[in-house]
Amino acid sequence: MGSENRRPEMRKDNVNNRWVIFSPARSRRPSDFKSKSNNNNNNQLECPFCLGHEHECAPEIFRFPPDSTSDWRIRVIQNLYPALSRDIDPSSLQNPNPSPISGGVALSGFGFHDVVIESPVHSVHLSDLDPVDVGVVLLAYKKRIQQLLSHDSIKYVQVFKNHGASAGASMSHSHSQIMALPVVPPSASVRLDCMKAYFDQTRKCSICEARSDDLIIDKSTHFISIVPFAATFPFEIWIIPLDHSSHFHKIDNQKDSDRYGFYAIQKCISFEAKIMLNIVLKESKVARKIKKQVLLIIKAALMLLNTT
Amino acid sequence: MGSENRRPEMRKDNVNNRWVIFSPARSRRPSDFKSKSNNNNNNQLECPFCLGHEHECAPEIFRFPPDSTSDWRIRVIQNLYPALSRDIDPSSLQNPNPSPISGGVALSGFGFHDVVIESPVHSVHLSDLDPVDVGVVLLAYKKRIQQLLSHDSIKYVQVFKNHGASAGASMSHSHSQIMALPVVPPSASVRLDCMKAYFDQTRKCSICEARSDDLIIDKSTHFISIVPFAATFPFEIWIIPLDHSSHFHKIDNQKDSDRYGFYAIQKCISFEAKIMLNIVLKESKVARKIKKQVLLIIKAALMLLNTT
Repeated sequence: MGSENRRPEMRKDNVNNRWVIFSPARSRRPSDFKSKSNNNNNNQLECPFCLGHEHECAPEIFRFPPDSTSDWRIRVIQNLYPALSRDIDPSSLQNPNPSPISGGVALSGFGFHDVVIESPVHSVHLSDLDPVDVGVVLLAYKKRIQQLLSHDSIKYVQVFKNHGASAGASMSHSHSQIMALPVVPPSASVRLDCMKAYFDQTRKCSICEARSDDLIIDKSTHFISIVPFAATFPFEIWIIPLDHSSHFHKIDNQKDSDRYGFYAIQKCISFEAKIMLNIVLKESKVARKIKKQVLLIIKAALMLLNTT
Repeated sequence: MGSENRRPEMRKDNVNNRWVIFSPARSRRPSDFKSKSNNNNNNQLECPFCLGHEHECAPEIFRFPPDSTSDWRIRVIQNLYPALSRDIDPSSLQNPNPSPISGGVALSGFGFHDVVIESPVHSVHLSDLDPVDVGVVLLAYKKRIQQLLSHDSIKYVQVFKNHGASAGASMSHSHSQIMALPVVPPSASVRLDCMKAYFDQTRKCSICEARSDDLIIDKSTHFISIVPFAATFPFEIWIIPLDHSSHFHKIDNQKDSDRYGFYAIQKCISFEAKIMLNIVLKESKVARKIKKQVLLIIKAALMLLNTT
């Protein structure tokens, strides 16, 4: 059995406080980008994400509309080459294995790795979708996050989209990915700790504060987009709900229907279409914010940790 | 005055616990890579790092041999487009400015940003140098780190080398960079905290332990190279001194002369010459290790913080 068939695992060494996912199977995934350039020379006849190729994909989780057949608008499916495996017994997580031949801790690679196919049509990018279909993508995120967080062993969910080969995408057909992890990444813990410290000092939510202070790009009924004060990369944009809200998946549908947030991302994609683009739905950046009340901050942190 | 003439500053917001350097002047720096491909189509007639073009560079800090003229082998110079400015009064650091229009803290961008020109010849890469000249590069790092750490306001020094345009290099002439910061980056603090926690638990140094546990690539009299247990990118290699040693700049010259460490990097560069490569001399990864005695661990941490 080749090493690419080994099951995934999560490792953390005793030097850096961070988890790394090892997934040999990921090396087998195909790419329809001919090279790591931005020429989307792809062969849509062979694209498994296209309408009519559904049988070439890993199992479907749900589609929209739910009862559609060949008229589906989006599909949420399992990733055929997942970084983490949903088939591993999560109870094995209870006994992390401090392997004697290792310099750290290894956990079995339990988790979920899904794909959201954003359109049945190969050539349609997220930036081409009309507002209604962008809203459908947002609602699919919300529904799948809710499903994943109901799993006892899942502590953290992240939605991300890599646009273009240089951004790490292997398939040109427009899609995003959802990963659900059995641990909270240190970067998320650090962010929560930092926001809690700011709250303890000022009784204010630092993300709510950010929106009034930084460079405002645009504003809609329910969302605002800003250039963050300490942006770490060019064209970094934060989209923040105007009403303090702790979880993306708990924002009500009325706000979903204000698709301003995704309009901003669409603009960004259009502008950056010729270079790489990564979009990450980090809960604290796009929509997740801890409550202003300190007890609820703790609750939010615990919610993340305990999936309560 | 264009925004590119604004002085650099360091910013930290109230959401993520990390410092970001803002340096508008960096956008003015030239590049002799024609594109972000790996074709080193460069014009050495115009290269300021070449022999005979010394007057086109920012001031020299030192060269080797010290009294050489047109026969220099390496030069350490100021960066003409520094990310941080050595001309800012570091006393202004004492009063961080929680700007009312910002969402965080801004410090004036005091610091040092130097360049090590590794050869007078344009076409010679680090992987082409003979062992003696590689040793000279190592000794230049050591000497400059010692100089920078003697500055009261400097808390952290990092050496790094970007090889190839895709790795972020703007000049194809072989060079590395040294940055000295007035703050300790959270990533370094996290590493020290993690190593201290491991020591408290086991009375062992986690980097010393790593070398015996992980996949060993090669070994010399004083150094070992390994694939780390929880590598975060392909071809990640750690080079570790066999004798526990807290600081790269305190390794004695006998070990410098065992240039094995750089041999490993040379091999790496040769192997990866056609793709991007980043080398970072992180003190804890290449040579810096906290003492096994817990008090000395704390001392090492304080040394980093206080430059004692």
